[in-house]
Amino acid sequence: MIAEIVCVGTELLLGNIVNTNAAYLAEKCAAVGLSCYYQTVVGDNKERLMETVKTAAKRADIVILSGGLGPTEDDLTKETVAEFCGREMYEDAHSRERLEQYFAARGLEMTENNLKQVMIPQDAKILDNHNGTAPGVIVETENTAFILLPGPPMELQPMFEDGVMPYLQGLTGEEICSQTVKICGGSESKIETEIKDLIDAQTNPTIATYAKPGEVHIRVTAKASSQKEANKLIKPVVKELKSRFGHKIYTTDESVTLEKAVVELLAGADLTIGLAESCTAGMLSARLVNVPGVSDVYKMGVTTYSNKAKRKLLNVKKSTLQKHGAVSQQTAEEMVKGCALLTGADVTVAITGIAGPDGGTEEKPVGLVYMACNIKGNIRIKKHQLKGSRSKIRENATMLALTLVRECVMEYLSKVTFGKK
Amino acid sequence: MIAEIVCVGTELLLGNIVNTNAAYLAEKCAAVGLSCYYQTVVGDNKERLMETVKTAAKRADIVILSGGLGPTEDDLTKETVAEFCGREMYEDAHSRERLEQYFAARGLEMTENNLKQVMIPQDAKILDNHNGTAPGVIVETENTAFILLPGPPMELQPMFEDGVMPYLQGLTGEEICSQTVKICGGSESKIETEIKDLIDAQTNPTIATYAKPGEVHIRVTAKASSQKEANKLIKPVVKELKSRFGHKIYTTDESVTLEKAVVELLAGADLTIGLAESCTAGMLSARLVNVPGVSDVYKMGVTTYSNKAKRKLLNVKKSTLQKHGAVSQQTAEEMVKGCALLTGADVTVAITGIAGPDGGTEEKPVGLVYMACNIKGNIRIKKHQLKGSRSKIRENATMLALTLVRECVMEYLSKVTFGKK
Repeated sequence: MIAEIVCVGTELLLGNIVNTNAAYLAEKCAAVGLSCYYQTVVGDNKERLMETVKTAAKRADIVILSGGLGPTEDDLTKETVAEFCGREMYEDAHSRERLEQYFAARGLEMTENNLKQVMIPQDAKILDNHNGTAPGVIVETENTAFILLPGPPMELQPMFEDGVMPYLQGLTGEEICSQTVKICGGSESKIETEIKDLIDAQTNPTIATYAKPGEVHIRVTAKASSQKEANKLIKPVVKELKSRFGHKIYTTDESVTLEKAVVELLAGADLTIGLAESCTAGMLSARLVNVPGVSDVYKMGVTTYSNKAKRKLLNVKKSTLQKHGAVSQQTAEEMVKGCALLTGADVTVAITGIAGPDGGTEEKPVGLVYMACNIKGNIRIKKHQLKGSRSKIRENATMLALTLVRECVMEYLSKVTFGKK
Repeated sequence: MIAEIVCVGTELLLGNIVNTNAAYLAEKCAAVGLSCYYQTVVGDNKERLMETVKTAAKRADIVILSGGLGPTEDDLTKETVAEFCGREMYEDAHSRERLEQYFAARGLEMTENNLKQVMIPQDAKILDNHNGTAPGVIVETENTAFILLPGPPMELQPMFEDGVMPYLQGLTGEEICSQTVKICGGSESKIETEIKDLIDAQTNPTIATYAKPGEVHIRVTAKASSQKEANKLIKPVVKELKSRFGHKIYTTDESVTLEKAVVELLAGADLTIGLAESCTAGMLSARLVNVPGVSDVYKMGVTTYSNKAKRKLLNVKKSTLQKHGAVSQQTAEEMVKGCALLTGADVTVAITGIAGPDGGTEEKPVGLVYMACNIKGNIRIKKHQLKGSRSKIRENATMLALTLVRECVMEYLSKVTFGKK
C-alpha cells in the first residue's frame, strides 16, 4: 500500500520550524511496510490545500495530514478534507465533553472558538487527544483513507502510536512487527557491507539500516497473519545479527538510547560514574541526565575547560600540561585519575580535545580527542581524530565516550564474573 | 516572485534524516522576499522526480532543488532537470579541474564515477562547491529558474550564501536586505502584541517574528534599488524596536547567538564565569562552549546532581537540604555562593530543579526550577515553573539562566559605571 505525507502550516513554509513530523511519520510508515513516495508541505490556504489533497488522493491509498486542526480560522485541514470527501460536519458530544474537561482540569475558561475543534466529519473515526485539545480524525472514502493529526509533535506522536498504528495494521489486514537492533562503534557503510548478503536476500522480513550520530540502527520488519507469526520470522534474523555484531549491539529495544543502555548497565552492576570533561564541556553529563533515574549512578561531574581547572579540580600536574599539552594521552590519564579521587565514583571518564575552529596545529589538528575510562584503577585511553564543525566534533566525542564506557564496563564485568568462578 | 522547494532523496522519504534543508531554504526565501507556497520531498526515482519538476515549474518562477547531485546512479536531479529543459550535458573543464584538485589535496584516488558530477547542462551557471565534490548549477528557461544544490547542509548553506543570494537579488532586480533583532526574556505572543501596530502598518520593510526556544527573533526586511536605500528603510524600524524592547534585545546581528552575546558581554567587562548545575547537568556549560574563544571567560563548572555532590563541591549545608530540599531558593543560594568559592569566578550561576517525569509533588511540581546568579556577592534568585518534557524543561532552564546572567551583568555594569562617575 502507498502512503503520502502532507504537513500543513505556514510556519513550515516560512522556515520558522523544522519539519520533524514528516521524518517521524515517514519512519513509522516504513516501519509498518507502507511505501511513501512524496511528502508535501502546504500553507494555511484553502485553495492550495485542496489542490494538495486532490493530488495526494490520486497517488496514494493512505494520506496522512498533520497540522491545521486547531481553533483558529487559519486551521483548515479538517474542513478541506471533509469538503473533498463530501462529508457534512457535526459537533461530537464525546469530544466536546473531553474538551470541556481539558479546560476545567486546568482552571481555564474555554473560549467559543475552541468548539471548532470538536466538529467532526460524518462517519469519521475519532482519535482522542490525550495531550492537547484537537482530536484527530480518520475519514475513509472508497479509494483513500485520510488520517488527520494535530501538528505539535507531543500530541501527534502518542496519537499515532495509540490510534493510528492499530488502524494501519487493520487496514493492511496483516500484522507488521519490527525490531530494531542498535549498534555503537561502527560506520554505516561497514555495517551494511557486513550484512549485504542478508539485505540482498531479504523479502520477509526486510532489513534496513539507519545511520544516527555515532551509532547505526538495523530495523528488521516482518509481515504475517498474526503478531506471533511475524515475531517468529524476525527472531532468526535478530539472532543472526547478534552472532555477527555481538557486544557491539547495545540494545534490541526501540525505546532504549545509548545513554540509557549505559545507565542501565551501570545500575545493574551497582557501579557509580563520575565525569571530567574539557572540550565536550558538559555534553556527556547532560546526555546521561536525559535518562530519568540516573541519580542512582551519576553523582557528580566537572567541566575543566582551563588548564587551571584541570590542575585545581583534578590534580593534573603542571609539568604534564607543559610537557605534553592539555590535549594528550598523559593529561587524559591524569584527568581520569583525578576525577576518581574527586568524585569517588567507581567508573570515571575524562575527555580532552581540540574542537576548533582555532587551536589546531600540524601535530595536533582540530578534531584530535583523547578520552579515558577508569574502572577502579583499570584505565583505558582512546585517541580519535574527528571531523566536522566544532559542535559535530564535540557531539561525536560524547557518543564515543559513551561507547568507551560501555566497552570498559562490560569487559570489567566479564573479568569480575570470571574471577568469582 | 514565487519560489518552490524540492528536496530529493529516498533517505528523507524513509524518515532516516530530518529535512533541515527545507527549513533553511524556506527561511532564506522569506528573507529575500520570495513567496513560497509548497515544499515537496521526492525520492531518487526518475519518473516521480520528473513529475515533481513539471508541477513545480508550473507553479513557481524559481524552483530550488537540493540533493541528487552526487556520483552514484541514484543521483538524478541534474539529469532530470536538463531533460525537462531540453539541454544537453557537457563535461565542464573548470569543474573537472577543481574536482581533481579536491581529491589530490586529500591524497585520495578519484574513481571514474566522480566525473558524473562535472557534467553540466548547456548554458547553465555553475556554483563552485567549496566544501564538497558536486558543484551546484542554475538552469534558466523562459519561465523558470532551476537552482540545483548539493544535499549535505554544510555544502548547501555556504553555496547558497555565496552564489544563490546574489543571483536571486539580481533576478528580482532589487536589493533585499534584512536585519534580525533578537530578544530574550519574552513570549512570542506578548512581543507580537507589543508590535502589532508596526506589523499591521508594514509594507516595506516587512516585519516577521520567529519564536525560538527561550527567545524571539524579529526580522525586518526591506526592498530597494540599492543596498544603501534598503538599509535606510530598515534603520528607523530597528530604532523603534530598540526603543520598545530596550535591554531585552541582546543583538541585532544575525550570526550572534544568546550564548555568544553573553560570552562577549563577559569578555568585554573582563569578568569570568563559573557554573554549578543540577537538573540541567552540563547543558549550560556545553552551550557556553559552543562559542569559540570562550576559554577567556569560562574556567570551570560542576554538575552536582546528587545532594552529596552539592555538599562536597559547593558546601551546601546538610541542614539546608533537609529543611528546604534540593530544589529551593535556599539551596540555589548556597550553591551559587559555594560555586564562587570553588571556581573563584567573578560571575557564578546555579541551577536546581525538578525535570521530571518523576520526583514532583503538589508543593513542588515537575518543572519547578530555581536559578541564582552571583556577581561578586550580589545574588539574584529566580523561580520558574516550566512546562513540557524532561528535555524541554532542562533546555528552557538553560536559556533562562543565560538570560538571567545577561540581566545581572548589565545591571552590575551600569552600577559600576555609575559608581565611577
